[in-house]
Amino acid sequence: MLDFDVTPLPTDITESIQSKIDNKIKPLGSLGKLEKLALQICRIQNTLSPELKKPTMLVFAGDHGINAEGVSVFPQEVTYQMVINFLNGGAGISVFAKQSGMDIKVVDAGVKYNFEPQPNLIIAKIAEGTKNFLHEPAMTKEQCLKAINKGAEILAQIHKEGCNVVGFGEMGISNTSPSSVILSILCDIPIEDCVGRGAGIGDKMLEKKKEVLKKAIENNLKSKEPLDVLTTFGGLEISMLIGAMIKAAELKMVIIIDGFINSSALLLASRLYPNITEYCIFSHKSKEKAHINLLKELGADTILDLDLHLGEGTGAAIAYPIIESAVVFLNNMSSYDDVGVSNVIE
Amino acid sequence: MLDFDVTPLPTDITESIQSKIDNKIKPLGSLGKLEKLALQICRIQNTLSPELKKPTMLVFAGDHGINAEGVSVFPQEVTYQMVINFLNGGAGISVFAKQSGMDIKVVDAGVKYNFEPQPNLIIAKIAEGTKNFLHEPAMTKEQCLKAINKGAEILAQIHKEGCNVVGFGEMGISNTSPSSVILSILCDIPIEDCVGRGAGIGDKMLEKKKEVLKKAIENNLKSKEPLDVLTTFGGLEISMLIGAMIKAAELKMVIIIDGFINSSALLLASRLYPNITEYCIFSHKSKEKAHINLLKELGADTILDLDLHLGEGTGAAIAYPIIESAVVFLNNMSSYDDVGVSNVIE
Repeated sequence: MLDFDVTPLPTDITESIQSKIDNKIKPLGSLGKLEKLALQICRIQNTLSPELKKPTMLVFAGDHGINAEGVSVFPQEVTYQMVINFLNGGAGISVFAKQSGMDIKVVDAGVKYNFEPQPNLIIAKIAEGTKNFLHEPAMTKEQCLKAINKGAEILAQIHKEGCNVVGFGEMGISNTSPSSVILSILCDIPIEDCVGRGAGIGDKMLEKKKEVLKKAIENNLKSKEPLDVLTTFGGLEISMLIGAMIKAAELKMVIIIDGFINSSALLLASRLYPNITEYCIFSHKSKEKAHINLLKELGADTILDLDLHLGEGTGAAIAYPIIESAVVFLNNMSSYDDVGVSNVIE
Repeated sequence: MLDFDVTPLPTDITESIQSKIDNKIKPLGSLGKLEKLALQICRIQNTLSPELKKPTMLVFAGDHGINAEGVSVFPQEVTYQMVINFLNGGAGISVFAKQSGMDIKVVDAGVKYNFEPQPNLIIAKIAEGTKNFLHEPAMTKEQCLKAINKGAEILAQIHKEGCNVVGFGEMGISNTSPSSVILSILCDIPIEDCVGRGAGIGDKMLEKKKEVLKKAIENNLKSKEPLDVLTTFGGLEISMLIGAMIKAAELKMVIIIDGFINSSALLLASRLYPNITEYCIFSHKSKEKAHINLLKELGADTILDLDLHLGEGTGAAIAYPIIESAVVFLNNMSSYDDVGVSNVIE
């Protein structure tokens, strides 16, 4: 059904990379996590001289039938309104991607709105949003597979244009709900511990959200197979995101993971292709318990801890310069061999 | 003796800034610490439209008499060798400052070496290093005051050239030793809890370092007045750093604090001018207990937690893009008033 191939990172090059890192003019290990990032990027690219080319922020948007149950503080039309803002340059992801020198592309995976064609908008609509998974499966299996393969296709095109590092964003009012359900089912964590305040819902709405999602699982959970879970409870933008992530790993690209929704998509992708996480850099963690639980499941070590919870891919774009720093020091710092600096006294 | 004036940040503008932040098209508070940074920078500049101009990394270098006691793994000549590397572009601080678009200036505050004049090197040598404070005061009071005032003068010149945001770096083999002593004396923390591994000393040397510093305090502590502590146990680069920090706050500049040595200099400065910390952004925390204790004393909330412990100002340079992000979102993101995006459902 899915035909991808995600290989583990090479190990034979690890020692040479570590030796290059250790020979830079600095105390051993003193660049901390940047050194780990440099090692990972070198292994992904199988080189001692990594390059980050045409960094791209790929934002998938879709609407959600579950929104009818009142699980978000924002009305559904905000999905399409924000897509327009992403393209107009005024949204969070627009300004941060620009600051970080990342191209931005927005994909209509399933928004309930007809967009005019315009630059940087990829119209790949599978349906006008998902069905309400409280009552019926969000998608058909066919739609879900089509979305995954479409995501992979879009990613392959970006790669073909010269990009080797990609950050993922998403927009979809109510899309923390499918993400919470995916986490709950795949990791056997009670739904209560997988639900957060999303864009800032109050206590009463939070209780309702938990109740709705619990009931949805009771009503519709037939199989815990990842693709069945995705079909029944997922989103069109989430499915496309998963396909794009898998393809990026297959193409040996550096993948920058944003927040909760990104991470739940990766969780599902990793159940299909376990090696995928080796290609992923985790940009940030929020203070939400659900996100922290999810990162733990993925064994993720995050770059930033700034209490960001805006979504859209903003965490990935804000963290991008730090990822660049890892490549910069490895390529540009002198080594003890190059310059006349005395090393440690033996 | 010292004639500076550091005023508290304005409070009358706070509400207008917060309202501008809250009206951006994003869930309330969703940019976490970036929102706090934006608020702080606006208050420092007393404006709703902050600008970061000519960001500069100012690195002070000096040698330390205490180095004779074997408290560092690196030989003393590494101080001057690294200064040359800073200027040649191959050091950590060189590559990260360049990546972040920061100008770099290196100040010879008291290195035991005669540098050839060259661009971006400011020769302001007070002495060829300090005396060994195990046996005698590191400086005379006159040298210490001269260094502070020279630091202020250099800073004022950079400000005059258009800079309004400055990061501080330092280079001085063995300069974690004076920093530890300053922390211990000013905060009444046992010296054992103020000492770390610096550039990576082993267990045996660590024990020796603790012993040497303990004995130095026993031998020479006559007064806990900040300037007396600085004169007796400080460094020329540390004194100059303190003068530069105080002047930067007086001139209402954004100050980016690097790691342990920067923070101990700030601690001392804050005992002279308590309002100074309001002008400071803390770039990172390391895993060292001494640094963590020091940050706690300063009430510091750091941006990065990447286990960096290279020094030179590298943490400040690596964090700089994140500080820029705070200004970028405030100036460039649309607000709900600007665009047709539905806000929260009441």
